[in-house]
Amino acid sequence: MKQLSELMGYRKGIKVVDATLRDGGLVNDFYFPENFAKELYKANLKAGVDYMEFGYKADKEMFDVNSFGKSKFCDDDYIRSIVGENDTDLKIAVMADVGRCNYRQDLIEKKDSPIDLVRVATYINTIPSAVDMIEDAAKKGYETSCNIMAISNAQESDVKIALETLGQSPVNVIYIVDSYGALYPEQIARISDLYLNAAEKYGKKIGIHAHNNQQMAFANTVEAAGDGVDYLDATYAAMGRGAGNCSMELLLGFLRNPKYNIYPVIQFIQEHIVPMQEAGVVWGYDLQYLMTGILNQHPRTAIQFTKEARKDYAEFYKEVVAQD
Amino acid sequence: MKQLSELMGYRKGIKVVDATLRDGGLVNDFYFPENFAKELYKANLKAGVDYMEFGYKADKEMFDVNSFGKSKFCDDDYIRSIVGENDTDLKIAVMADVGRCNYRQDLIEKKDSPIDLVRVATYINTIPSAVDMIEDAAKKGYETSCNIMAISNAQESDVKIALETLGQSPVNVIYIVDSYGALYPEQIARISDLYLNAAEKYGKKIGIHAHNNQQMAFANTVEAAGDGVDYLDATYAAMGRGAGNCSMELLLGFLRNPKYNIYPVIQFIQEHIVPMQEAGVVWGYDLQYLMTGILNQHPRTAIQFTKEARKDYAEFYKEVVAQD
Repeated sequence: MKQLSELMGYRKGIKVVDATLRDGGLVNDFYFPENFAKELYKANLKAGVDYMEFGYKADKEMFDVNSFGKSKFCDDDYIRSIVGENDTDLKIAVMADVGRCNYRQDLIEKKDSPIDLVRVATYINTIPSAVDMIEDAAKKGYETSCNIMAISNAQESDVKIALETLGQSPVNVIYIVDSYGALYPEQIARISDLYLNAAEKYGKKIGIHAHNNQQMAFANTVEAAGDGVDYLDATYAAMGRGAGNCSMELLLGFLRNPKYNIYPVIQFIQEHIVPMQEAGVVWGYDLQYLMTGILNQHPRTAIQFTKEARKDYAEFYKEVVAQD
Repeated sequence: MKQLSELMGYRKGIKVVDATLRDGGLVNDFYFPENFAKELYKANLKAGVDYMEFGYKADKEMFDVNSFGKSKFCDDDYIRSIVGENDTDLKIAVMADVGRCNYRQDLIEKKDSPIDLVRVATYINTIPSAVDMIEDAAKKGYETSCNIMAISNAQESDVKIALETLGQSPVNVIYIVDSYGALYPEQIARISDLYLNAAEKYGKKIGIHAHNNQQMAFANTVEAAGDGVDYLDATYAAMGRGAGNCSMELLLGFLRNPKYNIYPVIQFIQEHIVPMQEAGVVWGYDLQYLMTGILNQHPRTAIQFTKEARKDYAEFYKEVVAQD
């Protein structure tokens, strides 16, 4: 039986990672309302969340600072304006994409930064670049994770090589990332098994970042937690690219560790997320995301369908099947 | 490993039951638009659905025929006006609630009726009445199922007695019903095990009817299918009471039997469900349903919250916790 199968108990190793500013920022170009980040930080503290991801550490030579909100770049000053010295148990994370981050320059020594965890995001074919970033960040004193994206499209033999390579790197956490929302819990169980074997061999932790194309983001996260995966990504009201992520409110409603509280999450959603949705920011499960999920495709066509406020789902189905 | 764990394969025993008119009817007092039922019947035929539930067989002395649409009563004439002689592979089902159905009178001999399957819905404490209804329907020539509702609130020892009692009845299918959307896949696995043991002993089939309060309706249905549960309830766009059900489009996207087609479901949703939603009919996952789901409460307070178009989720949370 699974470690979490006694649903009345809990596993202390589990860490909840709030990715709202980062994955949610993909929906609104990181333009969050005034005070959103500050209030989210306070809500996370009250909710007992373990890590809060502030956004991307994007290369300002590649991305125009005037075209994105502050969470796209996560300057240390910006983070400090929200967390001060962050004299709390909540750790601060940022994501750094392979090929889109000037990490040698933009990532200073940990001792001078409010950031605790650098999450390196990579596709399976750029693992060597990811390892270079991980080594740089680790040498500067940060905790590191490696998020291998779009795992539903990767060959198992390639994944094994990636896990061996990462096992020998200084990375602390390796993430299962279902970018396309294509996976079912049974597959998550098998992938978790594969990752956890490598984790045990090399003394790493495993995490999961799910997408909700088939309304499986929460179920897959629960499955992974039961399998022994420790780092669980979630976002408030599932705010994230396309169909969104595992909902923080669902996850905290499930986890039995008394350190977690759902109430501040509900309050925050009522006060800050619902108004944003009412103002026209759109994400979450819908038929177009189900279709790209089933077909194991990148959701970009579904995102475009959403942006154009199209409602001809049947026509879209024919389009994506034709592209398959 | 599970029977469905080879995701490329499929189990021929699986039957998909469309409950849109019945569970969906709880949302709009069974007042569906003109042609809705007829077009749904056609879509189900194209989609390869195995059973279509037309609604309740409600007692007209208890319920005013002028206060509900036709699917509340499912007169044989009404069903025939849609299916004719139903010379198809799609079987016709109706639900009969214990204590709300004048079954001796309203259920005629099967040979004279378009109905194939009578689904008897009961709480755990009225199993003897359910058995009486099952015996009556079976004697008249119908297939029968027994849907034991609100199973998340039942004692396991009571469930065992109910399963023994039903095992010795003429019922064909016994349903796991998560009325409150309170259960997680791990619990479904254990409950499936319990039900399947009884099923094996007495030569019955098992079904599942899930609710989506915690976005687990589809995941729980997939879990049950993998465990050996054969009858899978779903509704188009999850239309059903409160948070709704397992979505037909998710389920058919998952099942690998080539007889099932998702495309007619998508077409129907676009043409008939989305306009109904745009006209103001409301159902589906939202925070208030998550809360009653977590607390394992009947969703009636959450339904009221929805009807009043309240948005003070945090206040509602305090109310339902206080009632707990």
